[in-house]
Formats: sequence, structure tokens, C-alpha cells
Amino acid sequence: MTEKAIQDYYRGKYAVCYGCGHQNPHGLQIKSFWEAEEVVCRYRPQPYHTAVPGYTYGGLLASLIDCHATGTAAAFMYRQENRPMDSDPPFRFVTGSLNVRFEAPTPIDTLLELRARVQEIRGRKVNVHVSVIADQITTVRAEVTVFQIPEGMEIFE
Amino acid sequence: MTEKAIQDYYRGKYAVCYGCGHQNPHGLQIKSFWEAEEVVCRYRPQPYHTAVPGYTYGGLLASLIDCHATGTAAAFMYRQENRPMDSDPPFRFVTGSLNVRFEAPTPIDTLLELRARVQEIRGRKVNVHVSVIADQITTVRAEVTVFQIPEGMEIFE
Repeated sequence: MTEKAIQDYYRGKYAVCYGCGHQNPHGLQIKSFWEAEEVVCRYRPQPYHTAVPGYTYGGLLASLIDCHATGTAAAFMYRQENRPMDSDPPFRFVTGSLNVRFEAPTPIDTLLELRARVQEIRGRKVNVHVSVIADQITTVRAEVTVFQIPEGMEIFE
Repeated sequence: MTEKAIQDYYRGKYAVCYGCGHQNPHGLQIKSFWEAEEVVCRYRPQPYHTAVPGYTYGGLLASLIDCHATGTAAAFMYRQENRPMDSDPPFRFVTGSLNVRFEAPTPIDTLLELRARVQEIRGRKVNVHVSVIADQITTVRAEVTVFQIPEGMEIFE
């Protein structure tokens, strides 16, 4: 049996996100999985996701980081409560801030690896660290602050 | 005569960026213009650029901010040297860090306005502040640090 990605558990309005919604046919549809103590997402940029020829567009990297961080926070909360990811109430997060440092150009013609860890949990606020690795080199590091959406609260309405 | 956008002056490898390259048919092709002391970009998200239904995806906003900031830095440098934007050597910038605060949900079915100012110039390093305004509300604020690419230096090779 193939392991389900964290994002495959998203339902309803959370399933249409351009970055991670499995119901958005135009979107990136990233998939994140536990690997030991980290959550990992692998993504191969499209040829048109260019910054300059041969390198990946920073906005795409920020997008991957954003959605991988919200997914990572959810995965950590389920694990902390020792609950399966399809159990209710669901843990879902929204991004409060995204701080991305581009440390080296990221090649485009390769499988990118995003590795994430939760660094701090304070109530509903979770800080996630994400690294982007391309051809064994860490090219981008990011700190993302995400907020847990209380079940039943319609923050977007 | 219609004013040319800053990005319309990009040539060669800078014209294929997914966010701002006028030669990338798959990309966002943002356009930024001077308005008094600010540089402004207006962009209408596609219906599929969703976070949750009705709201704009944060990764798209980060992408617009990123490219609008590099364009703004270039525009400021030309203005500071009192040079037309098609004069040589060209000012081109690469993003070093992108710090984005999502302060309120950004509606999707509207024309977004990004307003940017240069806050500090230290040698080749330029700090740019960018706000995203939707229906008269500032929903996102960002600080972007960009670096001027020395003419002839192939930082991506």
C-alpha cells in the first residue's frame, strides 16, 4: 500500500489550494511525507518555472515552502496527539509570515527536496523551519509562522 | 503612447522569469510602473490561484512581491542616476531574502495593487518595502532584500 501524503487528507475548502490542494487541477499539488523526525516534500519544477535559464524561480520556492510548512505543522500536531491524520477534528493551518533566505541559486533540472521541522509551538502558533536541497546543496532556508485554524471558525468569511 | 513597464526593458536571460519575464508565456508577466514616489503593479489573480475559495494563494502573493521588488530596485537605481531604463549598463537585481507578513486574507476576485518603495541602499544591497492592497485594505506587507548583479558577472553559472 502506498503511503498517503499529508495533503491527501485535506478536505473541502482546504483541498483547492493552488500549492497543495489535490482538487486544484491547475495547482502544484505538492505531497509531503514523514521521514523520521522531518517532513519531506519532493518536487520537480516545470521547465517554465525559471528565474534565469537553468535556475528555479524564487516565487515557486516560496510557494513550495509555504504549503510544505502548513502541512508539516498539521502532521506534527497529529503526531503529538498520537492521532491518525484522518481523525477529527482536523488540524489545519494558515500562514502568518514567510521568511525566506535564498542562499544559492537553485538549479531547475533536478528533483528538489524540502525538509521541514517544527521548531516551536505556542498555543495555536507554530514555527516551522524549511530547507530546500538541490543536488545535495542547501540553497534556501526559511522560517514560517503558521496558525492553527480553530475547528468551525470561518476565518476566511 | 503607452508607457512601457519596467519589466518590458528586461532582455536576454532576465526576460524568461516565471514571475516577470515578458518572454515566458507560462508565467505571470507582471508589469510595474512609477506612480509618483512609488512603484506600482496591478495584477488580477486567476480563478485557480486560490488559497481557500474566494481568497488568493499566499505563494502567488509572495511571487508577485518578489518580482515587483526586483523591478522596483532597478527603477529606483535608474532614477537615482537620472538614466533612461533602456540605457547601459542595465540595473538588474536578484532576491536575497523575502519576508512576507500575511495580515489579512486577500480576496481573489479583485484587482490587486502592489505598492513598493526603496527603503535603504547600501552598495549593491537594496531593501524594498512592498504592500499588497485589495479593495482598499492592506492585506500583506513585505520586506525584500535584493542584490544588484554586477554587469558581466554570471552569478548563475
